[in-house]
Amino acid sequence: MSGRYDFASDNVAPAAPEALAALTRFNDGFAPAYGADPVSARAADLVRSFLDADAEVRFVASGTAANAIALSAICRSFDAVMAHEHAHICTDETGAPGLFGHGVGLIALPGASGKLTPEALAGPLSQPPFAHRQAAAALSVTNATEYGTVYSAEELAALAAPVRASGLPIHLDGARLANAVAAGFDPRRLKDVCDIAVFGGTKAGATPSEAIVIFDPRLRDRFDARLKQAGQLPSKARFYAAPFIGLLEDGAILRHAAHANAMARRLAEATPFPVRHPVEANAVFVDMDEETLARLHAAGWFVYRFLDGSVRFMCSWATTPEAVDELAETLRAVA
Amino acid sequence: MSGRYDFASDNVAPAAPEALAALTRFNDGFAPAYGADPVSARAADLVRSFLDADAEVRFVASGTAANAIALSAICRSFDAVMAHEHAHICTDETGAPGLFGHGVGLIALPGASGKLTPEALAGPLSQPPFAHRQAAAALSVTNATEYGTVYSAEELAALAAPVRASGLPIHLDGARLANAVAAGFDPRRLKDVCDIAVFGGTKAGATPSEAIVIFDPRLRDRFDARLKQAGQLPSKARFYAAPFIGLLEDGAILRHAAHANAMARRLAEATPFPVRHPVEANAVFVDMDEETLARLHAAGWFVYRFLDGSVRFMCSWATTPEAVDELAETLRAVA
Amino acid sequence: MSGRYDFASDNVAPAAPEALAALTRFNDGFAPAYGADPVSARAADLVRSFLDADAEVRFVASGTAANAIALSAICRSFDAVMAHEHAHICTDETGAPGLFGHGVGLIALPGASGKLTPEALAGPLSQPPFAHRQAAAALSVTNATEYGTVYSAEELAALAAPVRASGLPIHLDGARLANAVAAGFDPRRLKDVCDIAVFGGTKAGATPSEAIVIFDPRLRDRFDARLKQAGQLPSKARFYAAPFIGLLEDGAILRHAAHANAMARRLAEATPFPVRHPVEANAVFVDMDEETLARLHAAGWFVYRFLDGSVRFMCSWATTPEAVDELAETLRAVA
Amino acid sequence: MSGRYDFASDNVAPAAPEALAALTRFNDGFAPAYGADPVSARAADLVRSFLDADAEVRFVASGTAANAIALSAICRSFDAVMAHEHAHICTDETGAPGLFGHGVGLIALPGASGKLTPEALAGPLSQPPFAHRQAAAALSVTNATEYGTVYSAEELAALAAPVRASGLPIHLDGARLANAVAAGFDPRRLKDVCDIAVFGGTKAGATPSEAIVIFDPRLRDRFDARLKQAGQLPSKARFYAAPFIGLLEDGAILRHAAHANAMARRLAEATPFPVRHPVEANAVFVDMDEETLARLHAAGWFVYRFLDGSVRFMCSWATTPEAVDELAETLRAVA
Repeated sequence: MSGRYDFASDNVAPAAPEALAALTRFNDGFAPAYGADPVSARAADLVRSFLDADAEVRFVASGTAANAIALSAICRSFDAVMAHEHAHICTDETGAPGLFGHGVGLIALPGASGKLTPEALAGPLSQPPFAHRQAAAALSVTNATEYGTVYSAEELAALAAPVRASGLPIHLDGARLANAVAAGFDPRRLKDVCDIAVFGGTKAGATPSEAIVIFDPRLRDRFDARLKQAGQLPSKARFYAAPFIGLLEDGAILRHAAHANAMARRLAEATPFPVRHPVEANAVFVDMDEETLARLHAAGWFVYRFLDGSVRFMCSWATTPEAVDELAETLRAVA
Repeated sequence: MSGRYDFASDNVAPAAPEALAALTRFNDGFAPAYGADPVSARAADLVRSFLDADAEVRFVASGTAANAIALSAICRSFDAVMAHEHAHICTDETGAPGLFGHGVGLIALPGASGKLTPEALAGPLSQPPFAHRQAAAALSVTNATEYGTVYSAEELAALAAPVRASGLPIHLDGARLANAVAAGFDPRRLKDVCDIAVFGGTKAGATPSEAIVIFDPRLRDRFDARLKQAGQLPSKARFYAAPFIGLLEDGAILRHAAHANAMARRLAEATPFPVRHPVEANAVFVDMDEETLARLHAAGWFVYRFLDGSVRFMCSWATTPEAVDELAETLRAVA
Repeated sequence: MSGRYDFASDNVAPAAPEALAALTRFNDGFAPAYGADPVSARAADLVRSFLDADAEVRFVASGTAANAIALSAICRSFDAVMAHEHAHICTDETGAPGLFGHGVGLIALPGASGKLTPEALAGPLSQPPFAHRQAAAALSVTNATEYGTVYSAEELAALAAPVRASGLPIHLDGARLANAVAAGFDPRRLKDVCDIAVFGGTKAGATPSEAIVIFDPRLRDRFDARLKQAGQLPSKARFYAAPFIGLLEDGAILRHAAHANAMARRLAEATPFPVRHPVEANAVFVDMDEETLARLHAAGWFVYRFLDGSVRFMCSWATTPEAVDELAETLRAVA
Repeated sequence: MSGRYDFASDNVAPAAPEALAALTRFNDGFAPAYGADPVSARAADLVRSFLDADAEVRFVASGTAANAIALSAICRSFDAVMAHEHAHICTDETGAPGLFGHGVGLIALPGASGKLTPEALAGPLSQPPFAHRQAAAALSVTNATEYGTVYSAEELAALAAPVRASGLPIHLDGARLANAVAAGFDPRRLKDVCDIAVFGGTKAGATPSEAIVIFDPRLRDRFDARLKQAGQLPSKARFYAAPFIGLLEDGAILRHAAHANAMARRLAEATPFPVRHPVEANAVFVDMDEETLARLHAAGWFVYRFLDGSVRFMCSWATTPEAVDELAETLRAVA
């Protein structure tokens, strides 16, 4: 029996049929390079419509790069970004913000189940401007969070308020924004709470593609030059735009995200292990000791122990109810 | 009539059918992320076989990033890279080597039709190690060159000899390596003349993908961490590996490159304008004054004036003889 | 009454007479620039002799820069440096390691009274090489520590052992190395436990000057180019070398450091507040509530609350017993 | 006979007596660190008065770092700085602008005798904003120039006009500003033509010290944090401020610069070799073949062949008429 990676992450899934179909559909004829093509224009329109925002949109290959480039646009090297201590930028990007941001700092803040609270920001925001420390100069927030929880628009507004009051910009890591929206987050509220966002396609079912959404007009100046230098201005740009068209034009992205979220709930209900965090999006985290995890691995299911010590199961558009049930059965067997 | 971009670059072409078919073929089931999947393994094998080399291979999204990351692996910030003054890294990457290389320098050297000679390297190589300058610490060479000329394996060996004698590493920008091979360059000789290479898929007919080929084992240490930090360790890696399988497994890449080269020769023969550089790969550069270029643009054909002042026409796998003939007719009309 | 800064830091002191005298003594005639002068050579000899080591020595202006440059010489951008969580590089240099190290990471480790233990290193050292994190690639250790404690040579050897066993290099921040030596640390043992060190002059009584000591010959290649690019290859180098001659040639540096240490002990004995850390070098940290600190400030004595919440009093070569007694009297008055 | 370095550079000279006296004078008592001391405040006042400008002033250790930090404050990594092709930032700083500027580009422009003209700027300024190149985003100008020529205030204003009309900032490298002023440049006009300047102390007779003068208030935000991260916020700041007090408070800086300039004129008149550039400041450049230079070296006089192929003789505050005459005699002997 070969290994099962279904629940290892949401990036182990293939591309959704709508994404691949769009890629094939637009693989026709010659098109200007570097985003000046009609496919990119159409995809940007769809993103703007989805977010109900008059934003600049660029399609790039990497979420890690997209986050780091976005942060470099709002922070200087002697600044620091406030973020949840387990945010992807803090824990899973090998210091990409520092590379693209020339040593920019990160202020890792605690928060239950991956969510920050205004209280957590109070400390950094109230620090006097001391030349010897990288001061809080921006907030980065993730929705859905690393722990599969979801901020409501009201929660994000409450989080944004003191940051905005301090005159600081806000970045959103939306690698799983679709899952958050499927869980109830209103994407039209994003423009109220952030200046620049990364709207993830890859984990939502696209072939690799991420949309950088620039809400603040002051950040647009020479953004293509910024992308080009950072290796994220694709020549054959249509291949990064097309999957967004496929996923957005008839709402496939939300159908898929809702399915992934539902699969997570199904798993949460079926697992015999204590579920550690609220299951609001497409992840389930359970308490599991090392021996049990070893048995699960031995049974062929590859999943990871996460930063908080729990074991993570990710669902995606491609997760089947049968797979969830099969996994749940195995979980009961190894429990 | 809408604009014609056919000859604007070789990145305006769609993906070749073999590349897209492979992408679709491997869009099946779950696969480990970040290159640990069998598709990536198979593609790397094919690249090794093509180059007859025991090299590490990684598939990334961007040639600009791939070049810059490769250079960062062989140079320190206070070093400089020798390259042709019109090499892509010197002129068309918005300083990406400096971003990824932390300010690494470039020593821009002259050379007819985009080709360096050992004589051009003699100056930088003979400079004493002066602390106040970024000293020559590596060579970057491009094959096929920016001007559509091709180094033979013997020419590259002659170029490499004094660099190797100085103990310095060599990088190859192979964005158009396939075109060079189709023009007679033996890819099995690459391992003799360089330490790290970028083997281009995008311009060869792939959906966006570039292979970083690491010949020197000393450069392999934590290379995935280097890629991850630089935003070039794709999660859904199979989508960058698959097109290489499609193009390499039955030799499509060379058929397509040979076709592109043939189209360039066809155009060179048909153009009424003086051809400025030897037409060895898939580019034709002609002398054309500004008024004539304006008439060509007005006729709907979008091409660019290049760094040497000539006007560039690029052919690709998708260029048709009919398009060449149609263009040639227009060229005669505007001449 | 004007403010008293005597105990705010050891960098509030003037230069010691021996340092200033040397500066004046060597301010004579013309001298080659950039360290090729006999004053720099003589000072380097004295440093080598003090450390009983065949090391390369460079004199630079800034300890912050010296630390960051040294780390950049032993780490790559996707690596991380293990250090005490309150080490100067982690808390008081505004991210300089990240700027000079292109985003290099820091792994902040706990340890009582500023000292690391081998146990604290075990976690990072045992991590598998995971591409998604900046892995432990070097150790930075500070002696005397930020909390005025001192590692013995044996303790440093024990700390170095697992790091060396992992093949990783070690950096020493010796901003207060003289105080550590005066407290019993044998400077001739430094070569056994580190690859590159910063030997502080500024806090030891020099006009601004720090010595970078390069033990590992492999780190010497083009070090002057590294310094020049980083703005730390002084043209009038003799002015950074001279104070080291003044302090080292007749042992003034240790007399001064021993005096500073003695003043700290005198203060520790006299203070009515609980002393939080062992007083082994030139610092005294006491528990003091905010109201009391305000009264002390109101009385004109400027000292700082430190990272661990205690209040720090630093002594220097220039601290007088009278000042200690005067401060102690005030402390008793505000207690 | 030992070597003579008198004319090798103006940084081979010792500190002028006024600078050293001030250093000694202010070496008294305790002073707040990092520039919050009264010595720094007094020196900043004197700089402002000298320039008749309401500017922020910081004293740092290195001109190379000061230039690079100033450029990093006005340019982003994907921008480029226009400068004379032989400007110190382009040729003699080992890529420091790229290190501190995260890969910022340099556009090297020609100009007779080290001086730029508005015509030379026209090309870069008229380039459309192309994402694939680092676009001209600032001007860096040097006065006195690398070739010992001096811009008048009117010339600088003419140079600045098209740059300002394009909305771009201007940096002045004033390593030899004192020599320019002694040659007739009105320092009070500096504020009209630049946004940030480096006013050199080191070559003007100071112990190592350079003043960064921030004219544009928008550049002041967190400048100390910028300096700290870059290793240029000195703790014992008074030692960098004091020499400026010594040189500025009674006009010594201009007396010394006028003397250096006069020595250059004396040498220019006495040399038997063709003088290549106008002798307006403290440098003389002559045509001299390699054999003759070898004889001069053999006679014990160490001078350098410069970037334009001529041989450079620098005078300083410490150059004596006797040394000039002695050198001239040797020159006649080796001619």
